[in-house]
Amino acid sequence: MGKIDWKPGNMLYPLPAVMVSAGDSPENFNIITIAWTGTICSDPPMCYISVRPGRHSYDLIKRTGEFVVNLTTRDLTFATDWCGVRSGRNFNKFEKMELTPGKAKVVKAPIIDEAPVNIECRVTEIKPLGTHHMFLAEVVNVKADEQYYDSKTGAFALKKSKPVAYLHGKYYELGKKIGKFGYAVEKKKTKRKRKQKQQKLKNKE
Amino acid sequence: MGKIDWKPGNMLYPLPAVMVSAGDSPENFNIITIAWTGTICSDPPMCYISVRPGRHSYDLIKRTGEFVVNLTTRDLTFATDWCGVRSGRNFNKFEKMELTPGKAKVVKAPIIDEAPVNIECRVTEIKPLGTHHMFLAEVVNVKADEQYYDSKTGAFALKKSKPVAYLHGKYYELGKKIGKFGYAVEKKKTKRKRKQKQQKLKNKE
Repeated sequence: MGKIDWKPGNMLYPLPAVMVSAGDSPENFNIITIAWTGTICSDPPMCYISVRPGRHSYDLIKRTGEFVVNLTTRDLTFATDWCGVRSGRNFNKFEKMELTPGKAKVVKAPIIDEAPVNIECRVTEIKPLGTHHMFLAEVVNVKADEQYYDSKTGAFALKKSKPVAYLHGKYYELGKKIGKFGYAVEKKKTKRKRKQKQQKLKNKE
Repeated sequence: MGKIDWKPGNMLYPLPAVMVSAGDSPENFNIITIAWTGTICSDPPMCYISVRPGRHSYDLIKRTGEFVVNLTTRDLTFATDWCGVRSGRNFNKFEKMELTPGKAKVVKAPIIDEAPVNIECRVTEIKPLGTHHMFLAEVVNVKADEQYYDSKTGAFALKKSKPVAYLHGKYYELGKKIGKFGYAVEKKKTKRKRKQKQQKLKNKE
């Protein structure tokens, strides 16, 4: 397979494109769209967002030490994109995009009510790296839309919210399911079990 | 919209599920699958992987200070899943999954030849967080499969490689394109331009 060498760059995809909400009173509530985000630790649950220091939300998050990661969906993609290119210095993004600032459980920052999942975060460290500074944060609460929650099984059908993936400058819906975590070894187990069963049957014959 | 409060946890999705290759000689080459990964800085280009200290690759990456992030595809999903649940202590994962260790340009760690993109990384810091330690790293080279590269336009059709997204324990193909970065404001520009044109025509009448 032929490979070309590129200059070092950011080609790690697909990524989430989340709307991060911040602020500590309705007058300064803001939203910034971020793809440089992810989970950094399972326990304690921690995630990060990387933000350019020049962005309006940078100072807001630095001062309050809090933000909410709001997962986005097909229906929220227009607002997600818009909030990523417009500045909170010039617009009230909640009003402009007709999004509802809701009350978080632990942090003062607002949640975006229309998002299927709201991850409330408290900053533990700010790490200057270059164009971006990384906000490392602990997850202090998760709110989830009950319409995707099955109270009988405890399962949360996140896929039904029509989540969106960001790939090299474009937004995509998710498509066909390929498998679930661990399916590669489950299959082998099944194969082995089938063989064992066949062996048992043979022994009986 | 009704929301339920969950205990703090990891619900930031969709994420990439990448195969990270490491080692400095063929006898110790290994692969570990990682979803706790992402871009943390645009310039210098930096990414991270979070790894449990008990994992076989942890010591390997710590000692060599290098790893390669290999993007995965529909055809690589079985190997991706398998490498995520098996240990390099018990298996030669390249051999078992019939993957080809290729030569990176800058680092000693192998690339996975079958992956459409290989991101060569050099560790800048290891940050213990809890169950996971975060390896912050600088991207020192990117290799890309030339079959997705258009030498005329310089465009790289990553979508054609059939990338995979990891969502809350399941692997999905990407589906329909919703838009490209900035489309929310492009549309408005077009609308305004259309109005301006109509105004010009009116003035002429």
